[in-house]
Amino acid sequence: MATLIASENFSPTEDAEVLRRSVKGWGTDEKAVISILAHRNAAQRYEIRLAYEELYREDLIKRLESELSGDFEKAVYRWILDPTDRYAVLAHVAIKKPETDYNVIVEISSTLSPEELLAVRRAYQLRYKHSLEEDLAAHTTGDIRKLLVALVTTYRYDGGEINAKMAKSEADILHDAIKDKAFNHEEVIRILSTRSKTQLMATFNRYRDDHGISISKNLLDDGADDFQKALHVVIRCLNDPKKYFEKVLRQAIKRAGTDEDALTRVIVTRAERDLKDIKELYYKKNSVHLEHAVAKETSGDYKAFLVTLLGQED
Amino acid sequence: MATLIASENFSPTEDAEVLRRSVKGWGTDEKAVISILAHRNAAQRYEIRLAYEELYREDLIKRLESELSGDFEKAVYRWILDPTDRYAVLAHVAIKKPETDYNVIVEISSTLSPEELLAVRRAYQLRYKHSLEEDLAAHTTGDIRKLLVALVTTYRYDGGEINAKMAKSEADILHDAIKDKAFNHEEVIRILSTRSKTQLMATFNRYRDDHGISISKNLLDDGADDFQKALHVVIRCLNDPKKYFEKVLRQAIKRAGTDEDALTRVIVTRAERDLKDIKELYYKKNSVHLEHAVAKETSGDYKAFLVTLLGQED
Repeated sequence: MATLIASENFSPTEDAEVLRRSVKGWGTDEKAVISILAHRNAAQRYEIRLAYEELYREDLIKRLESELSGDFEKAVYRWILDPTDRYAVLAHVAIKKPETDYNVIVEISSTLSPEELLAVRRAYQLRYKHSLEEDLAAHTTGDIRKLLVALVTTYRYDGGEINAKMAKSEADILHDAIKDKAFNHEEVIRILSTRSKTQLMATFNRYRDDHGISISKNLLDDGADDFQKALHVVIRCLNDPKKYFEKVLRQAIKRAGTDEDALTRVIVTRAERDLKDIKELYYKKNSVHLEHAVAKETSGDYKAFLVTLLGQED
Repeated sequence: MATLIASENFSPTEDAEVLRRSVKGWGTDEKAVISILAHRNAAQRYEIRLAYEELYREDLIKRLESELSGDFEKAVYRWILDPTDRYAVLAHVAIKKPETDYNVIVEISSTLSPEELLAVRRAYQLRYKHSLEEDLAAHTTGDIRKLLVALVTTYRYDGGEINAKMAKSEADILHDAIKDKAFNHEEVIRILSTRSKTQLMATFNRYRDDHGISISKNLLDDGADDFQKALHVVIRCLNDPKKYFEKVLRQAIKRAGTDEDALTRVIVTRAERDLKDIKELYYKKNSVHLEHAVAKETSGDYKAFLVTLLGQED
C-alpha cells in the first residue's frame, strides 16, 4: 500500500497557477510547493508540468531547481519526475559518484520488474545518450562490474514455473561457492542474474532446507568483501524488497549524520507503491513510527516534505 | 533492397483455401505451397495463418510441418514465422545444439537493431518460458559465455554521436589486447558489447588509421582460438552485415556438403530486407549469380523455394 494521499479534486491549471505564484518574485513559498506536489500522484504531476509549460513557457522542474536548495531541492526534483525517469536519474547519480554506489544499482535492477527495468534503460538512453550498461561498465571494474552489468542487462523471465531439480542443483552450486570462499563468481552471477525471481525463491528455499542456514545469512559469515556484500544486497532485494527497504531506512536514520540520499530515495520511490507496508515493518522492528524518526532526523521544508509523503496529514 | 516478390492481389482467404487443398488428403502439392508462401511478405503470411486457423480450426504451421520434410520443411517453417519469432527460434536451435553455435548468436545480437533485439528476447520468453540469456548462459562456459551473454543482453544506444577521444583510447585498448595475445577479455567485451554502433565504427576506423591494419584482419593473424574467431564475427557483423552475410553464403555453398542450415538462415532472414544487395556483392566476389550457385548445390522443392525467395520469377 502507498502512503501518498493524492488530491481528488485536481486541476492541473490551478496547481500550475499556485506553483507559479509560489516561485515568482523574491523568495519562495515552500509550504505551497509541498502542499501541492506532495499530494499529487505521478500522472497528476505530469499534467501539472504540461499545464505549467503551456501557461508560462518554462520548465517547472528547472524553475523549482533554481528556487529550492539542498536536500529539499533534491527530494522535490526526484519526486516530481516520472518514476521510470527517476530511476534513470538515480542510476546515473550512483554511477557518476567517485566510487559507484553499487547498492543503488543492485536495488534498481533487482527490485523492479523485468519490464520496468527495460523502461528505465530506455529512459536512461533518452536522457544521457549512452546506454546504462555502457556507463556502468566504464565506471566499475572486476567482479563487481561483472555482477552489476549482468544485473542491469538481464531481462528475466517473469513466469511462475519452478524447476525443482534445478533449484536443488543451483542451491548446491551457490552453497559450494559460498562455503569455499573461493567464490565461483561466474556461476553465482549466472544464477542470480538470469533465473526468474520465482525460480530463485525456490532455489533460496532449497538452500535453507538443505544447508540449515539462509543464503543471505551465510554470505555475511565473516570478513565479507565488497563482492559478497553486493551479493547479499542482491539476494535481499530479490527475496523481500519491503524488508530490504525497511533496513535501508533504518540504517539511513541510525547513522551518525543521517544519510539523506538514501532516506529521500526510499521515500520518493516507494511512496506511491508500498511505503505503508514498509512503515509497518519499520514500527515492528524499531518500536518507533517511521514518520517520527524521520521528523527527528530532518528539519525545515525537507522534513515537512518527507513526512507529508509518508502520509502525515497537514 | 529485398528479393522477395510479394503478391499485390492478395486474399488471405483464397490463399488459405489453396494451401488447404495442397496439404489435404494423400500427398502434398509442394509447388502450390511455394507459389503462395514464397510470394507473401511477413504481414501477408500472418494474415494467411489467421484465415487458415479461422476456416479450418487448425494451425497452418503445424500442418505444414507434418506434411513437409527435410530441408524444405525447415526452410518453410522458418520462413512462415514472423521475423522476430523466427530469430527466437534460430537462437534457441543454436543454443540447444550439442555445441552451441555461437556464430548464430553473434549474428543475431550484432546485426539487429537494439529494439529488434529486445523484441527477440521478448519473443524468446513467450515461446520457451526462459530468458534467452538464461538458456545461453546455461549452455556455454568461459570467455565465450561472457562475450555471448554480454552481446545478447545489451541494449545499445542507437544515436549518431561520436566521441573521438574515446574512439582513440578504446582503439588503443583493443590494439593492446590483440597485440599481446594476453587478451584483456573484460575490456574487449565491455567495448564491443556496450558502445553504440556509430561509436564502434569510429573506434574501428581509428584502429585502422593508427595501427595500419584493420581490427578484423588483425584478429585473424595466426592461430586464432574460438574466442578470437567469435570476436572476428562480432566485428564483421557490426561493421558490415551485408558483406558478412555474403561470406556466410559463400562458405555455406563452397563447403564439401553444402551447409543447408546457414543457406536457409541467410536467405529467409534477409529476403525481405537486403538480399538483393547481398546478391550483388556475391556476384562481385564470385562472378557467379547467387541463385545459380544455390540451384547447383540444392535440389527439389528446397531448391525451388530458395530460388523463388531469391527473386527468380516462376
